Amino acid sequence: MTTKIENLGVCPPSAEPAGKITMAHGGGGRRMHRLLQDVIVPAFDNPLLGAQHDGAVFEAGGARLAMTTDGYVVRPIFFPGGDIGHLAVCGTINDLAMCAARPLHIAAGFIIEEGFPIDDLARIAASMRATAEAENVTIVTGDTKVVEAGSGDGVYITTTGIGQVADGQDIRPNRAVPGDAVILSGDIGRHGIAVMAAREGLGFETPIESDAAPLWRPVDAMIRAGIDIHCLRDLTRGGLATSLIEIAEAAGTTIQIDEAAIEVDGPVRGACEILGLDPLYVANEGRFVAIMPRAQAQTAIDVLGSEAREVGQVVSRSGVGVIAKTVIGGERALDMLSGDQLPRIC
Amino acid sequence: MTTKIENLGVCPPSAEPAGKITMAHGGGGRRMHRLLQDVIVPAFDNPLLGAQHDGAVFEAGGARLAMTTDGYVVRPIFFPGGDIGHLAVCGTINDLAMCAARPLHIAAGFIIEEGFPIDDLARIAASMRATAEAENVTIVTGDTKVVEAGSGDGVYITTTGIGQVADGQDIRPNRAVPGDAVILSGDIGRHGIAVMAAREGLGFETPIESDAAPLWRPVDAMIRAGIDIHCLRDLTRGGLATSLIEIAEAAGTTIQIDEAAIEVDGPVRGACEILGLDPLYVANEGRFVAIMPRAQAQTAIDVLGSEAREVGQVVSRSGVGVIAKTVIGGERALDMLSGDQLPRIC
Repeated sequence: MTTKIENLGVCPPSAEPAGKITMAHGGGGRRMHRLLQDVIVPAFDNPLLGAQHDGAVFEAGGARLAMTTDGYVVRPIFFPGGDIGHLAVCGTINDLAMCAARPLHIAAGFIIEEGFPIDDLARIAASMRATAEAENVTIVTGDTKVVEAGSGDGVYITTTGIGQVADGQDIRPNRAVPGDAVILSGDIGRHGIAVMAAREGLGFETPIESDAAPLWRPVDAMIRAGIDIHCLRDLTRGGLATSLIEIAEAAGTTIQIDEAAIEVDGPVRGACEILGLDPLYVANEGRFVAIMPRAQAQTAIDVLGSEAREVGQVVSRSGVGVIAKTVIGGERALDMLSGDQLPRIC
Repeated sequence: MTTKIENLGVCPPSAEPAGKITMAHGGGGRRMHRLLQDVIVPAFDNPLLGAQHDGAVFEAGGARLAMTTDGYVVRPIFFPGGDIGHLAVCGTINDLAMCAARPLHIAAGFIIEEGFPIDDLARIAASMRATAEAENVTIVTGDTKVVEAGSGDGVYITTTGIGQVADGQDIRPNRAVPGDAVILSGDIGRHGIAVMAAREGLGFETPIESDAAPLWRPVDAMIRAGIDIHCLRDLTRGGLATSLIEIAEAAGTTIQIDEAAIEVDGPVRGACEILGLDPLYVANEGRFVAIMPRAQAQTAIDVLGSEAREVGQVVSRSGVGVIAKTVIGGERALDMLSGDQLPRIC
């Protein structure tokens, strides 16, 4: 049986129950990475498959394009600061932005459970339109499928984006090299806690809103400022820690971060303490890390605004992984969780 | 309550139960068209939205591209002649082909139910790869999400395709004009009956296999033969009748077909008679209609091979719709079904 323990990501890898998919396989952590590496990547084996990136980059008819796809299964569908439709459009824009691609068009596929209110569907569609329009992105095609009550959960949305890669940009995890700075675009943990609070009916004194937001504009601003961006990664399932571990593993290097430099809003920190969650692993949907030569770090911070911080460096240690300098001056190695602290967060 | 009657597509439109999604909304018939027109299209309102086409065509970086997305929820996942993975890749290739676009890349999003066998996932992924490779298409990026047991049904796949539109081609439903011939690429009804038989455990004397197959090659062959293709449409949910009604409505014209010219395999016809289904409305996944000037019809048939037939014409009657000349010499007007004869067929 799959248990809550798996969802908390502390189940040992050897506990894989008889070749069945568990919630941990969807959590963005170690278990999901192993599933992708063992089952999906070998079957699709080709040089473009973006297993270590947020999207695939290819040439088509002389254009350099990026393509990315993501399914959205968040519960609840509506939460403080957003909804599944806003999240789906932001997430796809962000995956393109992380390839330095200007988002152009989105395709949206809906899998709807019988009995779902049509008004909610209309509200979600309107939210998608508003988010897309504000970013000059068009939703060019779509599909709807309906499944029987009990074979779905309201609505699932899969959005796929096409973007045009900015000239001269070559952004990928394995360009992170020792000497690079790690810039974090803002505070962390708000999306995960906002969804968790809405799901569990937790009332906080200060309401916590999701950070879900489109990220092409800040990336575009860095490109225009002439920054030689080596790597970009938005923080989604698995939070900041998982994103950095993925980069460190792809680049074969160590990343050192300073926890004191990472901003966590007071209410989010309080909620994490109550719930026993580590903010470094809580999901975001509007934050990213940018890795670049250290000499350009201040320019990046100037461009990104007052919330951006240099939170670490790529260092030339022999190991591969992420080391966090703790607030009290110690060090801890960050491990990818087996599953996820909070399932169905996106 | 939603009832079987809705699934059979005979529920009157006025029976919409209190603004809830019903299975009929997913059937590809009149109810689904109304949902798209009332809820989805207005929210996404833009000139590219392919509501009346199988995909969107746009320019990006100087390339003329087509993009299409489709969710696959077929039950059972494995059926005679195919599986959900083969179907997802074929369906996306076919939607691109119907835009005269050479399929290039596919993105695949999986929504997997907790407890799903990993071996089945691997088998599906391998099937997707085999189908894509045989058509020189690469699966460039993917995503997996996991939902709790009871919130899904094994696996759903959303595939999105990018293709490059063949030079000089302008294929769309409203180019169908009086005087054009309607060519059907092969026999009809096999996919729907194969899935239905597998689902219900029906054993036929002669096993019926799905027709699921990729359609870019025959379309490419017609283009290379210099045929001025006005309109293409693959037959999926709703079968031949629904595809022709969609074209007639988009083009504002009448299409006349000759039922005697439409090939239905003996076992499929027998199964339809037993099950009370009209083969004109049964789903296919490897058949299409092509509409072109009548003078080029024979060339098209020569290119498409011995299974292709001229089954009708676009005629200049004042009405809009599809008229079938029956085998016994009468005429009947074909109506779009409210829902679908067979839910979750793709």
